[in-house]
Amino acid sequence: MKEWCFCVFIVDECRDYIPKEITEGYRGLAVANIGDARGRFGCMSWMIKPLHPDMRLCGPALTVQTYRADNLALHVALDMARPGDILVVDAGAIPDTGLWGGLMNHMAQLKKLGGIIVDGGVRDSLELAGDAFPVFARAVSPQGGFKSSPGSVNVPIACGGVPVLPGDLVVGDADGVVVVPSAKAEEILKKTLAVVAKEEELRERMDGGETLFSLLKLDGVPERLGMLATEKEM
Amino acid sequence: MKEWCFCVFIVDECRDYIPKEITEGYRGLAVANIGDARGRFGCMSWMIKPLHPDMRLCGPALTVQTYRADNLALHVALDMARPGDILVVDAGAIPDTGLWGGLMNHMAQLKKLGGIIVDGGVRDSLELAGDAFPVFARAVSPQGGFKSSPGSVNVPIACGGVPVLPGDLVVGDADGVVVVPSAKAEEILKKTLAVVAKEEELRERMDGGETLFSLLKLDGVPERLGMLATEKEM
Amino acid sequence: MKEWCFCVFIVDECRDYIPKEITEGYRGLAVANIGDARGRFGCMSWMIKPLHPDMRLCGPALTVQTYRADNLALHVALDMARPGDILVVDAGAIPDTGLWGGLMNHMAQLKKLGGIIVDGGVRDSLELAGDAFPVFARAVSPQGGFKSSPGSVNVPIACGGVPVLPGDLVVGDADGVVVVPSAKAEEILKKTLAVVAKEEELRERMDGGETLFSLLKLDGVPERLGMLATEKEM
Amino acid sequence: MKEWCFCVFIVDECRDYIPKEITEGYRGLAVANIGDARGRFGCMSWMIKPLHPDMRLCGPALTVQTYRADNLALHVALDMARPGDILVVDAGAIPDTGLWGGLMNHMAQLKKLGGIIVDGGVRDSLELAGDAFPVFARAVSPQGGFKSSPGSVNVPIACGGVPVLPGDLVVGDADGVVVVPSAKAEEILKKTLAVVAKEEELRERMDGGETLFSLLKLDGVPERLGMLATEKEM
Amino acid sequence: MKEWCFCVFIVDECRDYIPKEITEGYRGLAVANIGDARGRFGCMSWMIKPLHPDMRLCGPALTVQTYRADNLALHVALDMARPGDILVVDAGAIPDTGLWGGLMNHMAQLKKLGGIIVDGGVRDSLELAGDAFPVFARAVSPQGGFKSSPGSVNVPIACGGVPVLPGDLVVGDADGVVVVPSAKAEEILKKTLAVVAKEEELRERMDGGETLFSLLKLDGVPERLGMLATEKEM
Amino acid sequence: MKEWCFCVFIVDECRDYIPKEITEGYRGLAVANIGDARGRFGCMSWMIKPLHPDMRLCGPALTVQTYRADNLALHVALDMARPGDILVVDAGAIPDTGLWGGLMNHMAQLKKLGGIIVDGGVRDSLELAGDAFPVFARAVSPQGGFKSSPGSVNVPIACGGVPVLPGDLVVGDADGVVVVPSAKAEEILKKTLAVVAKEEELRERMDGGETLFSLLKLDGVPERLGMLATEKEM
Repeated sequence: MKEWCFCVFIVDECRDYIPKEITEGYRGLAVANIGDARGRFGCMSWMIKPLHPDMRLCGPALTVQTYRADNLALHVALDMARPGDILVVDAGAIPDTGLWGGLMNHMAQLKKLGGIIVDGGVRDSLELAGDAFPVFARAVSPQGGFKSSPGSVNVPIACGGVPVLPGDLVVGDADGVVVVPSAKAEEILKKTLAVVAKEEELRERMDGGETLFSLLKLDGVPERLGMLATEKEM
Repeated sequence: MKEWCFCVFIVDECRDYIPKEITEGYRGLAVANIGDARGRFGCMSWMIKPLHPDMRLCGPALTVQTYRADNLALHVALDMARPGDILVVDAGAIPDTGLWGGLMNHMAQLKKLGGIIVDGGVRDSLELAGDAFPVFARAVSPQGGFKSSPGSVNVPIACGGVPVLPGDLVVGDADGVVVVPSAKAEEILKKTLAVVAKEEELRERMDGGETLFSLLKLDGVPERLGMLATEKEM
Repeated sequence: MKEWCFCVFIVDECRDYIPKEITEGYRGLAVANIGDARGRFGCMSWMIKPLHPDMRLCGPALTVQTYRADNLALHVALDMARPGDILVVDAGAIPDTGLWGGLMNHMAQLKKLGGIIVDGGVRDSLELAGDAFPVFARAVSPQGGFKSSPGSVNVPIACGGVPVLPGDLVVGDADGVVVVPSAKAEEILKKTLAVVAKEEELRERMDGGETLFSLLKLDGVPERLGMLATEKEM
Repeated sequence: MKEWCFCVFIVDECRDYIPKEITEGYRGLAVANIGDARGRFGCMSWMIKPLHPDMRLCGPALTVQTYRADNLALHVALDMARPGDILVVDAGAIPDTGLWGGLMNHMAQLKKLGGIIVDGGVRDSLELAGDAFPVFARAVSPQGGFKSSPGSVNVPIACGGVPVLPGDLVVGDADGVVVVPSAKAEEILKKTLAVVAKEEELRERMDGGETLFSLLKLDGVPERLGMLATEKEM
Repeated sequence: MKEWCFCVFIVDECRDYIPKEITEGYRGLAVANIGDARGRFGCMSWMIKPLHPDMRLCGPALTVQTYRADNLALHVALDMARPGDILVVDAGAIPDTGLWGGLMNHMAQLKKLGGIIVDGGVRDSLELAGDAFPVFARAVSPQGGFKSSPGSVNVPIACGGVPVLPGDLVVGDADGVVVVPSAKAEEILKKTLAVVAKEEELRERMDGGETLFSLLKLDGVPERLGMLATEKEM
Repeated sequence: MKEWCFCVFIVDECRDYIPKEITEGYRGLAVANIGDARGRFGCMSWMIKPLHPDMRLCGPALTVQTYRADNLALHVALDMARPGDILVVDAGAIPDTGLWGGLMNHMAQLKKLGGIIVDGGVRDSLELAGDAFPVFARAVSPQGGFKSSPGSVNVPIACGGVPVLPGDLVVGDADGVVVVPSAKAEEILKKTLAVVAKEEELRERMDGGETLFSLLKLDGVPERLGMLATEKEM
């Protein structure tokens, strides 16, 4: 696989860092549950949201660093990407330029990419929101970017306040996006499944009449932390 | 009623500060109209929004102060709350942690609470938006909080830039949230009904051909304030 | 036409700066395409959004400068406006006051205005979102403004970070708003139509198997700008 | 003492809620230490800063709620205030209006007030920064406000994200501002002195060669919370 | 005078719109007072600040619109500018690129320009803060911009939320920046001098024992606006 | 060297990734120049600033990821760090908690660390600003954090919007902070020295009468990019 300037680590076939069955195992899982399994780390900024709440994405990151308000590097990545790749784009967190739009979205679907996450702006939002292709972004802005400044592909980036390395797993749903380092993908998957099972048990027991407070074993915890319950009249 | 550490005023049965019929009187009213009746004060920040535009809430505030990114105090409040209570949560205005989610929402519905307002983040947004239970928040974030730091329940808090005292009335709709101090609830209700009646009259008279400008008796006001009308050609 | 205090330029019949057929020519066009035709300038801040994604507006700007949190000048403009005018309101970019609501929206529709853009807050959002009248704003806030401070009508303003002069053309859709200076309206319309034609051609050729990268003639551009492609193994 | 419209609680001589010697006990203490003694609550937003880093204030709060961008209520409070009072002003967190300036600062000094905290803007900043009178604010803005909208004095407010009740103690230094509820003032003072003594002991022992980590008894804590130390070679 | 693409109005010798003696008359005046004389309009965002609080500027605006994160248009303007001109730069309000630095500052001083205001970032801040040349900006950022995208010079822009037309007067001090439309410069100067005289009189009368409240004729105003004074005991 | 949970890459003696003489070569260089040599990438957000403008830092990064509003992981890192290390802390970009203060600063100086960068808040700002130890942070906040939640040390982080890997070089001055990937340190140093030499030459030639515009070979560039110079009369 090609990688472009300013690279720190050279990566090849980084999409294969994580076995396919592991990646697929994450597909139906909630981002919130994965984040819990990661110890409550790895979730991008609340501002990174899908263009439609039903959009979901799951796959290996093809990282992109664009120069502010320029999308040349994003075009390079779109050209390199292979089916299933998720373009994860550090566009400097600038909301006021739409670096991805209808034309690129069309190309991405023809290439069967897995989705895109832009820490910056996108445009042609009605078309994007109506397409099946999942697009997550910080903002929608009609103002286009030029294609005249260099950038990098397949290098470590920061996106939504989280470091993303080439080949890391990214999963997105209505709540936002979580990043799972490739080396941890299997371990975190197991932990996530345990979180899900636990939550289902809690729901059933709540339906059976138990309180969430006692199910979470919180009795006595506030007192131990110094919270005092007082019962008084006015 | 129990209250927890760092309290300034001890409150008991604060939900009964406001007679039920007064609270019910507010149920169908628009937040914007109530805000006008309060002299254009008491509305929370524009960022405090319902997860679905059709959500509405109306009831007495059970106030909660959580430590940043921790929801132990919120669990305490959820455990204490009684039917109809609105949990009003000062979570430090931090958007990047989801302190309320599907499990707690489920418990709250089992307990027939009246709703929740979080000046911070919530998660499991698809589930929350689909439920009947009204949830208002500053943000949606998948990242969970821990349950290991103390907080307070039933103390004065700031939520969305507005002070909320235990037992104050909170009303929310698609526009946002307004707070009515308990001692003023009856007076403000009367004023709100007058605002509503006035607005209906204005609409009818506009339909009859009068201008809003003259109906609001604004003729001459701009001139008195120093605005000059000039009629010129280029 | 009347204009009010603090004016810099006196404008008369500024809505007629741009021939009607030119204005109508813009009606179905995408804001993103118009922005490209303007050289990627003239788009308002990403925060200026329609209350419903299907809303569109297109027409000459009747500019308004309100004092912060006061809507007297907006009432003056509403009273002066004629069918098709777009009220473009500099409300100091303050989100926490709703300076436009259901009553004014009703009057505006009776007068057959073309729409409104507020760099500030609006309220009665459910009603506004359901009406046919296009409303674009920075925020929704229930808190009303007073009508006791002066302002200006038909003067140069800044709205969403863009200067707007009386009679400039404003076009809005789901992506946001673009401003076209009246003197450039004909030239930019031609350029926009060329952009649209070009995009359609690109889509067809992508469907025919060409890549967007080569269609945009980007081959070799990254290298010329210093980006290096390396193919390595781990 | 007079109080003005929209009040929830009627307060009289609220400055005397806290005995003078308690207030004086706080005078030399660091805001950070007081915040720790309050359980790490009660500190205003980081944006509320003194105009000069050497400014310090300490005294009972005379609370003010202004209408957005209007300072009439602040003039009312300035007129009512007595020596030593701290004006604590909820100006809607709007930075772009200077509601306090040189003239009011001059009057406040003639009246020997204790200082002012504005959750909003102030102006004449060079003069204010050079005066002995402590001024804390969210922003500096040259744009003045009008004096034509009502507000409240001596009511619960939110300032810098913290609820402030009339008569609460406010203490400010270069780090920011902390609020101490009047009913807790004595208890928090004792705790603060203990924090200070502890910190001095820690410094001495660090100088004697101990590590802060072990002094804080953190050995083993990371492991108990699930952090794993690995020693590896590349 | 030359002007560059995307212009709306053609301006020639716009620096001479305002007679020199009028411009000079503003030189020692406070921005806050000028803003008051303009009816409390025309002040830029509080974020536009001098790099050193003692910096002051006063002169005619040479307006610049740069493409986001690119400073080619700023180089064009620097090359065109003549002694006394103030470069007023709309850089899209993006803080994270330093479009003006030590080299350009050096050239500007050699050309005896009057100063620069950037609604965006600048860099080499230590050098700039130490120079005599007044620099006002939204932010300091070390990251440079490219010089490869077009922009405009001598066109209407928005800077700090205020429209600025070529030749308008801009005045800056520690509080921020105010813009005076060229056609109003003489009128506003007279009004400003009246404001200054009034303020001096107020200070003297305060020193003589009168209150600011009565000097501003505010007695009875709160009551007329609905504020109620209550004198109660607890 | 030890590393702690959630690690992706295991690093050992990462401070020695970059030869000492290379690190020392950067010590006197300007952050702006280094950023230019990196192709105008790698500079942290403008909000990351030194507590005093004269502070400078230069050294290898010891990365830290704290849980929001908790500084346990920072204590772990402080305990592990060796002379010259720069603590680079991802604290979730939350400004309202002071995770580093006087005590930790004292310990860091006793250990002869090289400095600290916090993407979050610090406190005891007067003491910190007066010390010789360089502290860079997003904000100052008096509110402390707890020490009860896990985090990571020596893992890839995002700080100020830039990815930082253990052992990367970080350099800070009054303009902000730039990150140089360890593998590029030697190459970027050479490029930076060339930038510095070029800038000195430009200054000399400007002093000799040449214009910056022609020295940068910008003649004709605006025209080629579509900017049109027009010379007109009004």
